[in-house]
Amino acid sequence: MPRQNPLADRSLYRHWSRDTVRFSDQDSGGHVNNVSVVAYFETGRLAFMFDVMPRERLRRRRFVAARIDVNYLRESHWPGDVEMGTGVMAIGNSSLTLGAAAFKDGVCIATAEMTMVQLDGDKALALDAEMRAALTPHVIQLKAG
Amino acid sequence: MPRQNPLADRSLYRHWSRDTVRFSDQDSGGHVNNVSVVAYFETGRLAFMFDVMPRERLRRRRFVAARIDVNYLRESHWPGDVEMGTGVMAIGNSSLTLGAAAFKDGVCIATAEMTMVQLDGDKALALDAEMRAALTPHVIQLKAG
Amino acid sequence: MPRQNPLADRSLYRHWSRDTVRFSDQDSGGHVNNVSVVAYFETGRLAFMFDVMPRERLRRRRFVAARIDVNYLRESHWPGDVEMGTGVMAIGNSSLTLGAAAFKDGVCIATAEMTMVQLDGDKALALDAEMRAALTPHVIQLKAG
Amino acid sequence: MPRQNPLADRSLYRHWSRDTVRFSDQDSGGHVNNVSVVAYFETGRLAFMFDVMPRERLRRRRFVAARIDVNYLRESHWPGDVEMGTGVMAIGNSSLTLGAAAFKDGVCIATAEMTMVQLDGDKALALDAEMRAALTPHVIQLKAG
Repeated sequence: MPRQNPLADRSLYRHWSRDTVRFSDQDSGGHVNNVSVVAYFETGRLAFMFDVMPRERLRRRRFVAARIDVNYLRESHWPGDVEMGTGVMAIGNSSLTLGAAAFKDGVCIATAEMTMVQLDGDKALALDAEMRAALTPHVIQLKAG
Repeated sequence: MPRQNPLADRSLYRHWSRDTVRFSDQDSGGHVNNVSVVAYFETGRLAFMFDVMPRERLRRRRFVAARIDVNYLRESHWPGDVEMGTGVMAIGNSSLTLGAAAFKDGVCIATAEMTMVQLDGDKALALDAEMRAALTPHVIQLKAG
Repeated sequence: MPRQNPLADRSLYRHWSRDTVRFSDQDSGGHVNNVSVVAYFETGRLAFMFDVMPRERLRRRRFVAARIDVNYLRESHWPGDVEMGTGVMAIGNSSLTLGAAAFKDGVCIATAEMTMVQLDGDKALALDAEMRAALTPHVIQLKAG
Repeated sequence: MPRQNPLADRSLYRHWSRDTVRFSDQDSGGHVNNVSVVAYFETGRLAFMFDVMPRERLRRRRFVAARIDVNYLRESHWPGDVEMGTGVMAIGNSSLTLGAAAFKDGVCIATAEMTMVQLDGDKALALDAEMRAALTPHVIQLKAG
């Protein structure tokens, strides 16, 4: 059941990462389990944070997931790789929402919106100017659906 | 960072299931990884389908996940069990949206909305009267947030 | 293909723990994936360490897995729980070998031998008298195969 | 705690495959969990079977894991890829033992011996001449430890 989804557009993303589909990612339905797809998006999100964010920030502070919203577009199968494009949908005061799409064999299998909050211990911590400057080039502009 | 969430109310749910937190569910942040929380909700969703839906339907037809939207409310840790309450938020023509909440040590750690589509092969298949009758007692009424 | 295995004897074990079979533990072969069985044994091993070993030791020192050797006896399926019996096969200078068996629906599905080494930083650290005293009641006596 | 291990020799293997270390593969010890290492070896084993074995066989018959014996040599960490070399240690009547080694950043992190049995339904099925001919070029000769 393919459906249209604005996040499924490859040209939105400047940051790309890759994960390998494992045999154990498939469930008894004979396709990649939806939990494994969430793991692929985590790979993409962490690679984005590792590559894009100022390193010194990552050491002193931390981000926790507040919301992960995944749309499943197509069934996928072992073997092969999955490519994840990841970009910035919204920058809040202490939160950040990433948009992402996962592709297998050139076809978008799922999209995700992932909101994270920056914490200092257990308290929300505002994103500073250096972080905002690092994120801005990755902001994605969705086309009307 | 606890937050209010209408789905976090235990009294909403008539169906309960349980999963065990695995040591390997924790990530290098020292808490349960957000991907594992999605696996807990899958345990709850499949147990709901197994217990509530007419069995004969499950054999001939199949449900695939179309959307999984998880809100993370609190960090959680190994060891212990997680309890999942699962109910029905919306019944569409061929789709079904479940609402769920996961509790550890009596505290809600996350909520989820999960939309599934009933398929016959690759085509959407309408939910019949028997299925609707089985689901109706599990419909949950959210209080205004 | 059931086979005889000395570790498959329930009466060997004084320590028991439990894990829940997840739907996503099943692979496209329609049975529980062999990697998930290793996760069940990890649940048993960590529960054993948490319950049996002196707590203060666990905080200051750490154990890492050196070898995990799993024999698969029967295929198993979702849903349900798995019970793990865990005991001590051998106590070395700084190492410890646990024996374990996993049961589903009353039948042994797999056995494991797991060797761990106690480290202080990256150096092997001898097991002290208090640790040996805690482990001794859990030593298992295998019957000739 | 690096140790010598005859299977850790890269020159033994003609078949290579790759897996991606996931953030969620790390546990709260801050290193890749030993269960995830077993998943890497499964990736290598299935890739070997997919690439080397006669395809028609794989469709009609099936292999199940009878034993997986993993030696852990070094701790490893996200991010990056793992390379698996896989070869044939022994060919039995209906069983097959593969030897394998996993490398991260050029260093062997673990080795494995994996015994599988060919089944027809639930009965052991002898490996035929075509299968033996396909496996023979991948037989590995271990040097004395």
